[in-house]
Amino acid sequence: DARGKPDTVTLIPGDGIGPEISSAVMKIFEAAKAPIRWEERNVTAIKGPGGRWMIPPDAKESMDRNKIGLKGPLKTPIAAGHPSMNLLLRKTFDLYANVRPCISIEGYKTPYTNVDLVTIRENTEGEYSGIEHVIVEGVVQSIKLITEDASRRIAEYAFEYARNNQRSSVTAVHKANIMRMSDGLFLRKCREVAEGYKDIKFTEMYLDTVCLNMVQDPTQFDVLVMPNLYGDILSDLCAGLIGGLGVTPSGNIGANGVAIFESVHGTAPDIAGLDMANPTALLLSAVMMLRHMGLHDYGNKIQTACFDTIRDKKVLTKDLGGNSKCSEFTADICRRIQDLD
Amino acid sequence: DARGKPDTVTLIPGDGIGPEISSAVMKIFEAAKAPIRWEERNVTAIKGPGGRWMIPPDAKESMDRNKIGLKGPLKTPIAAGHPSMNLLLRKTFDLYANVRPCISIEGYKTPYTNVDLVTIRENTEGEYSGIEHVIVEGVVQSIKLITEDASRRIAEYAFEYARNNQRSSVTAVHKANIMRMSDGLFLRKCREVAEGYKDIKFTEMYLDTVCLNMVQDPTQFDVLVMPNLYGDILSDLCAGLIGGLGVTPSGNIGANGVAIFESVHGTAPDIAGLDMANPTALLLSAVMMLRHMGLHDYGNKIQTACFDTIRDKKVLTKDLGGNSKCSEFTADICRRIQDLD
Ligand SMILES: CC(C)[C@H](C(=O)O)[C@@H](O)C(=O)O
Ligand SMILES: CC(C)[C@H](C(=O)O)[C@@H](O)C(=O)O
Repeated sequence: DARGKPDTVTLIPGDGIGPEISSAVMKIFEAAKAPIRWEERNVTAIKGPGGRWMIPPDAKESMDRNKIGLKGPLKTPIAAGHPSMNLLLRKTFDLYANVRPCISIEGYKTPYTNVDLVTIRENTEGEYSGIEHVIVEGVVQSIKLITEDASRRIAEYAFEYARNNQRSSVTAVHKANIMRMSDGLFLRKCREVAEGYKDIKFTEMYLDTVCLNMVQDPTQFDVLVMPNLYGDILSDLCAGLIGGLGVTPSGNIGANGVAIFESVHGTAPDIAGLDMANPTALLLSAVMMLRHMGLHDYGNKIQTACFDTIRDKKVLTKDLGGNSKCSEFTADICRRIQDLD
Repeated sequence: DARGKPDTVTLIPGDGIGPEISSAVMKIFEAAKAPIRWEERNVTAIKGPGGRWMIPPDAKESMDRNKIGLKGPLKTPIAAGHPSMNLLLRKTFDLYANVRPCISIEGYKTPYTNVDLVTIRENTEGEYSGIEHVIVEGVVQSIKLITEDASRRIAEYAFEYARNNQRSSVTAVHKANIMRMSDGLFLRKCREVAEGYKDIKFTEMYLDTVCLNMVQDPTQFDVLVMPNLYGDILSDLCAGLIGGLGVTPSGNIGANGVAIFESVHGTAPDIAGLDMANPTALLLSAVMMLRHMGLHDYGNKIQTACFDTIRDKKVLTKDLGGNSKCSEFTADICRRIQDLD
């Protein structure tokens, strides 16, 4: 923290390869002397009073106290009726903004170079309201809920993010030509908030047009802000542009200063425990976390070392095209960090 | 038709570059001796009795009689309150399936080669229901409507299309993990219909996963079928993979044998009348139309000539990277057709 004391972060190692990649991140943080103390917790939902699924109280308490969490992949839902942990965490901590910087990684070949954009997804409402009805046999409706408050909040987050991260434009992504009232409200709030950020260029674009332009030339985009489902789609599309979920960091920003950073790939049970996993996505999420905490120097140092290891191509995990172990990849990053000092 | 007599097709040249590219298509059809007679109509909506926007009666009558239409781009909406012509046409003729074959064009460079897939979009309901409400000040809901009938109909269309076009798999694209009832119903109908098509492989995939995989390796996909909004997004994304709307054909299949084929790009008013437009998207849509009518040989001949012209790179319109006029590009295709005979 500001006084130089280590901040405590709630670490949710997760399932499958989660523990391995979490310990890789801890090793790298140690090498970088990042002033972070880890408090490990298990968040897998349990049945609470009244049969409601909930985060175990000690995990909830830890997050409430520390405010900042780092989370590996979770096996979820673990049984019929068990909730999606992603959705439960978003709800429990009102994680209203999902933030995904998608930046091309030099040396990791994809059809695109120079991707450098950030998707900011409203994470609490929209198509994810969970309100559905059978009207009559064979006719079902799902309700997309858009509120002024949530729209303003996410728009404000996007513009603040742009300003604080030296980004020059924000694009609101919508289908207000079709959903005139709901996407219309979202868009109106974006426009209103934009008024207060004259230093940031504001544009609006239809989701279909964004998708088309994105695969033709992603370099035209900077910060993109959008309702829940569109964010689900676009954030995965953009992850694909830079090499997939194995290298894409993600952060979930909540009310009251809570934030959880996470890798969004799966638990990869087939390779769990075999020292083969790629810790990059979790590591880059941890770098996002450091920056979010104002610890930019540590974040930059770790990111540089990680990108150097990838660019160098000598010590890569299998999914990155090499045949090194997770521990070797981790050690290479640690060595580079020490060399940077 | 089957008796060798020319079929009559309703031609809707459209606005902006529409007339130019339509006459290019007519010239090419003439060179190919395609047995088609054109009946030109203007579909731009007019105010009918009771103030309702409608297709002009003579255009409606022509389509009802001929069943098959070819449509250029329309300037739309033309005034406040004027409806989207796309939506009005879909509604008027119950055009329930939007079909977009996305096939890489040799010689036209994009980040992808060997794309060869078809998106089939449910075109009548879902997020496009148009039902929206303000619940209380600042809280809006839009209703996504999914019906058993429309879901079964589009699934059946997709499997029939796959079978009739020598395609081996159909993927249902959904978010039934989130919209359990609505997308759940859609998915259930796809599964049921799949039972009747044991020759076609059936898979299901989340929309976000499809987007991610699509930009990483589109060659893994074949026929994709999905609800309205997902189709809006994916069909544009896939068009982007092969070079954009200027080279992507589209067909709208309706009830009662009606079908309208169309280029989905804009009217490009800036170059209208300057003999600079690229007629490829409309031409390839017209090729889809010929195949739909069973006139495969004519369709293949025209497509081969068009692709040869593009691969050859000598006579290309500006947007394709050349500096030839629309008329020169058209003439080159006509010449190749004559050479093929
Ligand atoms: C797992 C699923 C509930 C989730 C979503 O649809 O939001 C996932 O795709 C994501 O993006 O976090
Ligand atoms: C113009 C618009 C109404 C339309 C849609 O959203 O369906 C367009 O994007 C399309 O795909 O035909």
